[in-house]
Amino acid sequence: MNLIQKYNIPTPKEKRVKINEILSFDTFPCVLKIDLPVHKSDIGGVITDIQNNDELKKAKEIILNNLKKHDISFDENSEFLIQEEVKGIELIIGGKFDGIFGEVLIFGSGGTLVEIEKDITYIDTNADENEITKAIKKTKISKIFPEFRGKKYNLGAVIDVIKKLQIMFNNENITEFDINPLIVNEKGAIAVDVRIKEGKKNKKTFYSKKHSIFKNENIAIFGATDKEEKVGYAIAKNALNSKANIYFVNPHLNTLFDKRVYKSIDELPPIDTSVIAIPTKFVLDTVEKMACKGCKNFIIISAGFKEIGNIEAEKKLKELAIKYDLNIVGPNCLGIYNADKELNLTFAKSSIYKGDIGLISQSGAVLTAIMDKAAQNKIGFSHIISMGNMADFNFANAINELNNQENCKTISIYAEGIQYGKEFLKAIRNSKKEILIFKAGKSKAAKKAAFSHTGNLAGDFEMFKILSENAGAVFKNSIESLIYSPEYKAKEVIIVTNAGGPGTILTDLVSQYAKIKELDKKTIEKLNKVLPPTWSHNNPIDVIGDATDERYKAALETVKNLGDIIFVIITPQYMTDALSIVKILNNDKYIPILLGKESFLDAINYLENQNRLYFTSLEEAAKIL
Amino acid sequence: MNLIQKYNIPTPKEKRVKINEILSFDTFPCVLKIDLPVHKSDIGGVITDIQNNDELKKAKEIILNNLKKHDISFDENSEFLIQEEVKGIELIIGGKFDGIFGEVLIFGSGGTLVEIEKDITYIDTNADENEITKAIKKTKISKIFPEFRGKKYNLGAVIDVIKKLQIMFNNENITEFDINPLIVNEKGAIAVDVRIKEGKKNKKTFYSKKHSIFKNENIAIFGATDKEEKVGYAIAKNALNSKANIYFVNPHLNTLFDKRVYKSIDELPPIDTSVIAIPTKFVLDTVEKMACKGCKNFIIISAGFKEIGNIEAEKKLKELAIKYDLNIVGPNCLGIYNADKELNLTFAKSSIYKGDIGLISQSGAVLTAIMDKAAQNKIGFSHIISMGNMADFNFANAINELNNQENCKTISIYAEGIQYGKEFLKAIRNSKKEILIFKAGKSKAAKKAAFSHTGNLAGDFEMFKILSENAGAVFKNSIESLIYSPEYKAKEVIIVTNAGGPGTILTDLVSQYAKIKELDKKTIEKLNKVLPPTWSHNNPIDVIGDATDERYKAALETVKNLGDIIFVIITPQYMTDALSIVKILNNDKYIPILLGKESFLDAINYLENQNRLYFTSLEEAAKIL
Repeated sequence: MNLIQKYNIPTPKEKRVKINEILSFDTFPCVLKIDLPVHKSDIGGVITDIQNNDELKKAKEIILNNLKKHDISFDENSEFLIQEEVKGIELIIGGKFDGIFGEVLIFGSGGTLVEIEKDITYIDTNADENEITKAIKKTKISKIFPEFRGKKYNLGAVIDVIKKLQIMFNNENITEFDINPLIVNEKGAIAVDVRIKEGKKNKKTFYSKKHSIFKNENIAIFGATDKEEKVGYAIAKNALNSKANIYFVNPHLNTLFDKRVYKSIDELPPIDTSVIAIPTKFVLDTVEKMACKGCKNFIIISAGFKEIGNIEAEKKLKELAIKYDLNIVGPNCLGIYNADKELNLTFAKSSIYKGDIGLISQSGAVLTAIMDKAAQNKIGFSHIISMGNMADFNFANAINELNNQENCKTISIYAEGIQYGKEFLKAIRNSKKEILIFKAGKSKAAKKAAFSHTGNLAGDFEMFKILSENAGAVFKNSIESLIYSPEYKAKEVIIVTNAGGPGTILTDLVSQYAKIKELDKKTIEKLNKVLPPTWSHNNPIDVIGDATDERYKAALETVKNLGDIIFVIITPQYMTDALSIVKILNNDKYIPILLGKESFLDAINYLENQNRLYFTSLEEAAKIL
Repeated sequence: MNLIQKYNIPTPKEKRVKINEILSFDTFPCVLKIDLPVHKSDIGGVITDIQNNDELKKAKEIILNNLKKHDISFDENSEFLIQEEVKGIELIIGGKFDGIFGEVLIFGSGGTLVEIEKDITYIDTNADENEITKAIKKTKISKIFPEFRGKKYNLGAVIDVIKKLQIMFNNENITEFDINPLIVNEKGAIAVDVRIKEGKKNKKTFYSKKHSIFKNENIAIFGATDKEEKVGYAIAKNALNSKANIYFVNPHLNTLFDKRVYKSIDELPPIDTSVIAIPTKFVLDTVEKMACKGCKNFIIISAGFKEIGNIEAEKKLKELAIKYDLNIVGPNCLGIYNADKELNLTFAKSSIYKGDIGLISQSGAVLTAIMDKAAQNKIGFSHIISMGNMADFNFANAINELNNQENCKTISIYAEGIQYGKEFLKAIRNSKKEILIFKAGKSKAAKKAAFSHTGNLAGDFEMFKILSENAGAVFKNSIESLIYSPEYKAKEVIIVTNAGGPGTILTDLVSQYAKIKELDKKTIEKLNKVLPPTWSHNNPIDVIGDATDERYKAALETVKNLGDIIFVIITPQYMTDALSIVKILNNDKYIPILLGKESFLDAINYLENQNRLYFTSLEEAAKIL
């Protein structure tokens, strides 16, 4: 309690009185307890709900009587404890020092059922009032604010306690604590029962980066080779067509793709970016030599580090990064891409289109899957970073870096397990660009898998999600969703369909991410004029099974300026001419969804030839939101 | 309270005593209250936690004192109420008469926060003990049974109360009630506060079916035509190749597909099944004439009934069904399919394969989408019923019907809004076959859309889901999931992958439906011998990025007898030869997932030619579970 009082957190009034003294108190209702090492309530040693000093005296008599009855011995030094009785709604605020996020607060519905109802949220100790409020609003119990069942509850009083606890937790040697209950009532919030565990907190040092990983004028590719089966070949080939100066390095080769191959580091001109795809044993030495030569950026493709237990070598990479102020991406990564220089330093096979998404992926295979999907749909990237083992360059560094890149509009992240949670949250908080995250490792089995694969603890999924969302990130449910935004991120959606059922299903799917736009009276009247009387009179706009391209067109013309995007569902009804319908969808705001393949081959061909985004599944379509 | 006591539900002991009588009671702790029309607790008129008769007397003095102090007048007829004080955990049991499901109980965490925490479940009043237990286990609060924080709580006592309330609710004219709290403690369960709303319940009559809709020997198709743009043409053509006798009926046609066309009903031989695809105004008359001729089954394709406000005609269809003991499917439906007779009485374009899934769909367009997907994957059906408006033949009838069909192994349902909830649940309960349900109308907007489209109230999604699941149905999250089961319904899944990230993501997806099989020591040792030392030592089995077909084969041979199915993920790593890998997947237990299209064209071609089920998306793959 002392620490809690030191930080000015309200606690109940209390007073100790020797057993023979006259009892009096100034705050009612109050509770009288005999302070003896017995199970007080079982022997009648506690009286609650005392309303005034008269009742307090009678309560003393009753307790003394009960003590005698139960043969409980006491002497003149025994004490009564008089305590303000605090009634109200029970909340909990706990704190734990998490291995990833450091000091984290837990807020929620309190009392004895807390472990059962688990109506809780997480709050970073660096969160400001706005973020704290967002976090609290995620709990069901927050519905008591500002009023519940005729009584007023002050959210500000709770936020005030949380802010004090943030300071306390950050400043003191505490590894864990619990206030349960924190009682809120019309007077405020009072910490009634407090448990604190002291201890030293084990903090890691975070290094922010001084140089940009995307300053790529002069690139050296170590391990460039003419052997097609090696990644060094793929990287060299992918890098060729860039606007940067590319220097191949390989002691056993003279030329590659008609370019000179350098035999040694000494021969090289000044280099800012080194890509390392050479045997593991040569990596450390090469990095240090290049660092001495002034190179700041290292993309280490080579594997054989932490992921196979070679922790020492990985540690040394980190030490080199600190010593020479380097950006070391990887090891065991797929590479990076920088649209500014049209520079593809990855060994991926997919073509990459220029665009405005900055993509950060912890898994090379997931990255290739995303790149393949993006290439299919002609979606482009401004930057790509394959994180690999994250010996040095980590998620927080990557987010900060992409924030400095003008061409990047959205930062999309595939994460499994992160390090430096507090810095990660800070980076999200400071980001001027929208951050989308898909994280694996929700289930227990997946958490185990993520660990065995990246060597990074996946941590608690819910905590990760809630803290990141509070800090400002948007969570996505699939890897594909990472590449559609922000172009298609819609607040209000219109659905035009020739069948009610699929319209209903899509409405459910859309409602998870966006709003189904309500049609105003005027629009409904306009639609009445162009649609048959049986149309749905509602969004989804069911233009009825026998709809022709003319009817679709009339409906679309009427609503084209409403909503952010318009899904156009076409189902193979008996007289549906899908080709003529897709031909009128001459606007990127219209997203065609063709439910059926056999019947729609010509329409699909048409859309493919027009480079249009289209879907054949309602669920896939909803992912763009 | 009287009704509650009539059904022997425990309530607290209580006793009324005139103000001048001597107080005594036999159950402690108890509460003493003055029974006057004042706000008792504000003026000190309630004393809780009274442990014995001595304290009871003192409590009386205190209250009388308080009354004087507050100038509250009373006389010799004024009464004290002594009530057993029941302490424990607060639950709620409510009841409401739902428009779809009739009498439904609500069980959950009680107290004043019930509307906030909403930790509740639904229980049908016809549910047996097993089903009640299943329902209760869906709440978080059920974790207090059988023991919580050192105290024992008896689930049996709660179930006993629920069973009594089921009888009460079914028998009495009650439209709503609430027991909040029902307090459970180590002694049992006691209804402390009860509110009952009496009123008449509006019940609909349900008709079960005497004849099978799938007795299809002699079929008349009304509206068969040679005009290709009409549905009557498609139905006639689809029906042609069946083992049943097909009779086309059309007064304006002589022959169709080289078969005689009948001009009138009188000419027809005895018919058991009539398909009606004629103008709306002729439907009722045709049905009645055919019914008089002894026809029992009617599939009404024609639209123009309830869905355009023509409620009268639809009512008359229902009356005809009752009068002549008919099965009337539709109106406004796509038709039916019966594999026994290879009889396709739908106007769908997709080919239908013979199989063991019985499919029931409320939306024709959703049905065609499912049929298209099934045809692509060569998945077959035993029966298909397109429900249409459900003027007569409803979901409960359809489930009962499919239960009588030997060739049907699984019943898959797409539903929007149902009628006859209690009969629907009974049909699920009595089903000997697995029932899979996908229901649209979860979001508010979708509920509205479903209503405007089918004219059936979608009802409360959660209630529908919980009641159906308790009765024994399995809920699915997508329409595709309805057709993969039961063949691929796996309890334990193994994942073999050449990349950790996708393995982790698939683990999350699989964990929603099934278990990731844990590998025993022996298996891990065997895998150690055939895999590189960096393999994951775990399921997902990460065979590492440079895996060849030989390595995949060695891993698969080791685990082929474990788990129910094995997902084999192939990502386009730099040296991956996907074609040679898919060639070794010579077992239907192996489900290939190829993450990437451009790089995998030959492997995909090979799988297509082999008629193998495969996926290019982790999420699509997980749907088969």
